[in-house]
Amino acid sequence: MSLAENTNISIEKIAKSRIDSIDFENLKFGTTFSDHMLVCHYKDGQWGDVQIKPYGPMSFEPSINVFHYGQAIFEGMKAYKDSNDDVWLFRPRENWKRFNKSAERMEMPQIDETRFVDGLKTLLNLDREWVKPGQGNALYLRPFMIGTHPGVVAGPSSEFMFCIICSPARTYYSGKVKVQIAEHYSRAANGGVGYTKCSGNYAGQFYPTKLAQQKGYQQVIWTDDATHTKLEEAGTMNVFFRIGDTLITAPTSERILDGVTRKSLLDIAKSKGIDIDVRTIVVQELLDAHAKGELKEIFGAGTAVTIGQIEGFAYQEKFYSLPEIADENSFAVQLKNSLQGIQQKTVEDIFGWTEKVEKK
Amino acid sequence: MSLAENTNISIEKIAKSRIDSIDFENLKFGTTFSDHMLVCHYKDGQWGDVQIKPYGPMSFEPSINVFHYGQAIFEGMKAYKDSNDDVWLFRPRENWKRFNKSAERMEMPQIDETRFVDGLKTLLNLDREWVKPGQGNALYLRPFMIGTHPGVVAGPSSEFMFCIICSPARTYYSGKVKVQIAEHYSRAANGGVGYTKCSGNYAGQFYPTKLAQQKGYQQVIWTDDATHTKLEEAGTMNVFFRIGDTLITAPTSERILDGVTRKSLLDIAKSKGIDIDVRTIVVQELLDAHAKGELKEIFGAGTAVTIGQIEGFAYQEKFYSLPEIADENSFAVQLKNSLQGIQQKTVEDIFGWTEKVEKK
Repeated sequence: MSLAENTNISIEKIAKSRIDSIDFENLKFGTTFSDHMLVCHYKDGQWGDVQIKPYGPMSFEPSINVFHYGQAIFEGMKAYKDSNDDVWLFRPRENWKRFNKSAERMEMPQIDETRFVDGLKTLLNLDREWVKPGQGNALYLRPFMIGTHPGVVAGPSSEFMFCIICSPARTYYSGKVKVQIAEHYSRAANGGVGYTKCSGNYAGQFYPTKLAQQKGYQQVIWTDDATHTKLEEAGTMNVFFRIGDTLITAPTSERILDGVTRKSLLDIAKSKGIDIDVRTIVVQELLDAHAKGELKEIFGAGTAVTIGQIEGFAYQEKFYSLPEIADENSFAVQLKNSLQGIQQKTVEDIFGWTEKVEKK
Repeated sequence: MSLAENTNISIEKIAKSRIDSIDFENLKFGTTFSDHMLVCHYKDGQWGDVQIKPYGPMSFEPSINVFHYGQAIFEGMKAYKDSNDDVWLFRPRENWKRFNKSAERMEMPQIDETRFVDGLKTLLNLDREWVKPGQGNALYLRPFMIGTHPGVVAGPSSEFMFCIICSPARTYYSGKVKVQIAEHYSRAANGGVGYTKCSGNYAGQFYPTKLAQQKGYQQVIWTDDATHTKLEEAGTMNVFFRIGDTLITAPTSERILDGVTRKSLLDIAKSKGIDIDVRTIVVQELLDAHAKGELKEIFGAGTAVTIGQIEGFAYQEKFYSLPEIADENSFAVQLKNSLQGIQQKTVEDIFGWTEKVEKK
């Protein structure tokens, strides 16, 4: 199919908005949904029209592909509202491109920019009251695609549903977390699907994460499955290490997600003159740097929390604390403030990353 | 929860059976479903009652866990009908045990033997007309569990649905297949989920399999992701190699499914006095044995096809044909006939593997 294919967007508005029933001061992440959702079906080798309609349950046969063979991918994005009551997206076309990379690896159809980005903007225009202004407020956006053809045949689905749902969220500050470096469990394989946002990458993490939590660590730093020496991701985030005044993160690969937050932070760090080093970093280097007092910061980076600071890590039953660092000296805090400022339109977007959702 | 927990089984019968509309001579695998299905919901830390009701679509919120984070596991089983019109299951408690192993790794709840095995038998008793007698006929059974709690929070679901659907099937003989040995792509990681029947293990295979098919090979023989030298599975099946008169298969591990067909074949082979060797086998050994003319057979083993014979394999752009072998000299054919005979009740079940579904 052509990526420039035209589509009609039909809109069925909700009879009465649910927005007055929502306590926006006390939102639990990912549990409240806005009035509308976007739905688009793929059948007979092509995508149909984009439908925007009231958020609500849908009917599926119990034999659909996603329940059995797991064809399911998603993106995580956010919309922000500035002080002029305008709604903004952050690098939405990066999410669209990555969605299609995930789709290719999971043997799912490519979706065109019109249905993904313009569809999303049409949905956001309709639900713009659900995007609240002010520091830390955002509307979390969840585009996803699932295999919907019925039949328990172990093969790719011939029918798919693309859908976008929206959940109002406040950036939660959960404090710094303790992490455990994975010594046995893994999230990705060479030649596998680790770089995609496929559903199976997440389900496989829950059990090892629970085991870490039972030992008092909130998250796992994932290592390569072959040697368990290379530091790759933290929980569902990319991971950064500051040794001395150099910021180190693993290069993207088949095993590592090409995070939009990750690459935005790298660009911001460059613009601030911070030394960055995108290369493989191994556990021993971390231990050595810690012993020499040079390991200053570790943080995760992802859409949901932007930056999640780490206060220390466990490895081989020993816990290594990181030093206290003042906010004004912290790379994590500086980068987080810059990125969130760009996203919330309080800091000049010198990169051209933000995109306005025009009022219609 | 206790695995011996009692449950009520409620039955809602279909108004009119669909069976007369089914052409049992021309079934496409996995696309036709019997009149009834079993449904059981897990909520607030416990399983509810088992409901048996007409097969049909169900309603789900677009934010349920399985669509985003992939908590989904299944089993594949078959029911057979003998010449006395009795319905039989093959080692159903092995599937139940493996289901719970998958559930543990995917951070899903254990299900008790009563709900799984007795529930299945109650369903089969009701749909026993859907199990056709005669060589190659079976009712394919698909128990599965999915995370059903709504909310796009990257964590395990707190609600689940256990379901069994049934699809009449004829064992298809698709002829011998050509396979490609994986040199880049992988299906499993050390410390990963390869040994489970989770949905994500299947979705990840479709793209590499398509690439192999484009080169003329129907399936992929998967190798370990770290070195791509160890031969592990074939497509969605365990894999056996016959070198000389020894039957070799990889030991089960974190990366390899503990197949019920695999272990049944090993026991049958033992009983026939066939030399078996359960150990790691590497690509070079296969090439050496082929060069010496000692590589006689390769076959996959799984519930859907029992045994799938392989006529040759591609490795590093070269194709290696296996010798023609008469049925009476083929381990694959001998083992397949014995196993199918036990399953169809035409060969004495000296192992005690078959279990009758009592008429009620």
